[in-house]
Amino acid sequence: MSALALGPGHEFDRIRRIVARLGPLATDIGDDCAVIEDRPGALVVSVDLSIEGVHFRREWLTLEEIGWRAASAALSDLAAEGAATVGLLASIGLPREAPENDLLGLMTGIGAAAGEAGGTVLGGDLAASERWVIDIAVIGRATRPVKRSGATPGDGLWVTGQLGAARAALEAWQRGGTPSPEARAAFAHPVPRIRTGQALARAGVHAMIDLSDGLGGDAAHLAAASGVALDIDLDSLAVSPDVVRAAALAGLPPEHFAALGGEDYELLAALPAGFTPVQASELTRETGVLLSRIGTVSEGAGVRFVLEGRKVVLAGYDHFV
Amino acid sequence: MSALALGPGHEFDRIRRIVARLGPLATDIGDDCAVIEDRPGALVVSVDLSIEGVHFRREWLTLEEIGWRAASAALSDLAAEGAATVGLLASIGLPREAPENDLLGLMTGIGAAAGEAGGTVLGGDLAASERWVIDIAVIGRATRPVKRSGATPGDGLWVTGQLGAARAALEAWQRGGTPSPEARAAFAHPVPRIRTGQALARAGVHAMIDLSDGLGGDAAHLAAASGVALDIDLDSLAVSPDVVRAAALAGLPPEHFAALGGEDYELLAALPAGFTPVQASELTRETGVLLSRIGTVSEGAGVRFVLEGRKVVLAGYDHFV
Repeated sequence: MSALALGPGHEFDRIRRIVARLGPLATDIGDDCAVIEDRPGALVVSVDLSIEGVHFRREWLTLEEIGWRAASAALSDLAAEGAATVGLLASIGLPREAPENDLLGLMTGIGAAAGEAGGTVLGGDLAASERWVIDIAVIGRATRPVKRSGATPGDGLWVTGQLGAARAALEAWQRGGTPSPEARAAFAHPVPRIRTGQALARAGVHAMIDLSDGLGGDAAHLAAASGVALDIDLDSLAVSPDVVRAAALAGLPPEHFAALGGEDYELLAALPAGFTPVQASELTRETGVLLSRIGTVSEGAGVRFVLEGRKVVLAGYDHFV
Repeated sequence: MSALALGPGHEFDRIRRIVARLGPLATDIGDDCAVIEDRPGALVVSVDLSIEGVHFRREWLTLEEIGWRAASAALSDLAAEGAATVGLLASIGLPREAPENDLLGLMTGIGAAAGEAGGTVLGGDLAASERWVIDIAVIGRATRPVKRSGATPGDGLWVTGQLGAARAALEAWQRGGTPSPEARAAFAHPVPRIRTGQALARAGVHAMIDLSDGLGGDAAHLAAASGVALDIDLDSLAVSPDVVRAAALAGLPPEHFAALGGEDYELLAALPAGFTPVQASELTRETGVLLSRIGTVSEGAGVRFVLEGRKVVLAGYDHFV
């Protein structure tokens, strides 16, 4: 790539190898900043920090999967804005003794996630660190960014995909077991709902949030930001088949287990009352992603969850508890 | 701040306290993404990762200084583009046992650096980590971003400020000593040259880079990106007074020591041949920052350094050596 004209040095040799590996998935690397051209639409930005031993363990995932997952967690925030992906910046802390192929594997996963979402790797930083650290800054573009704050009484609450499989994988590993291939894939290879988020924005969605901490916690953010109450019927929740077994081991109903599982990176959307099941089916056909109605927005505050006709209390995952 | 409507949880209480501490220096916090409004000019983005034990030690600096320094290192990349600051996103990894005031102190320093540069804190992420990790993503706006690649044979090479004081502080600490207050301030409280970078852009600068790794290494990047040779006369380099003593201890001429010192966050600029010392003085009066001519751009490749009429060989700082 002729644009990558850096001076000599080991660190710059590393950057040259990364850019060679990424090929067309790396753009505008090698200056002080990457330039995002002036085009119509607001830009939206977010960051997501992943740390070895906290967010992932080396024995669970390959470095390519670790890279994919870290990038997808950040890209999921663009999906929640109904934005198109511009690109991402990757800051990597890596052990001094890490083989070169580990870094290239990690960056391959990050580049693949950026490309899958419709963007490129725009830059980054490398530093020595005792444990792997991956911080991904994402940049997207949206004509009308979707906020958490627009939900209106009467709106329907909809959720994309199926919930709980990432938690099922995590709990299998934590018990010393091996997750099913499907649960493992949900944890290792989440696909941010970029296209679905844009389709929902076109459909007139009022408010949206991505389910990174789990429906239990994230629904509360949407309710607080919009100044409304949410009524969610967990019986309507689409749960992954793997969740049934994992939930039984955890002593919870599958829907309760799934609603408390973080890192599914699905979307919770408040859509106008007039949004119909037929429109939902069309959107599923268009994007390949399931869309299920799970509740209603009303006046008030907080989130009420119901399962088999009875109120249940949920809480999200907290990194610092 | 009424916009900060998050649901319950310890992590969100932390974010609420940070936003309360930052006051008007925090904007658009609390959604999946921050929104940057559509206005004229390209956006420029960069990241800079700082890790405890690699880039700083807790016993050298307060957390407020650590925050200022990490943010300023990233903001300096905007200066090199001749960009105005929009804002920054701060990803923080912090030890579980860290007192709440440590995090608030760190964010106070980050917020102050953002404000000094003309921007705000637009968002971030928090995660548990064994050691402090600070990754800063910066966003700026420029009508015509200045690249490293525009230097043309005949251009004059100019550098802002004085070099070497940050290295003098670092070496004092590494010897077990105490740096002078001036050297300590250069390391702990670098001021990114945002306004000077913009003034140089208005003056028609052809190429620019910030001196984060030291003149020795960074000049080579500018030469490589522009496809030119640089001749630099180190006798013209403005060195900090503290550097004379530190250079003597290191057994080097002060200018050699200063040219190899990283983390000064000054700018190296290639200005058209017609840019005069009178214009340089005016620019110094306008911005309060010294501007010294240290060399010339010519056809060819690489960087030739001369000190007292003799060629010297320099190399920059490499994080992984």
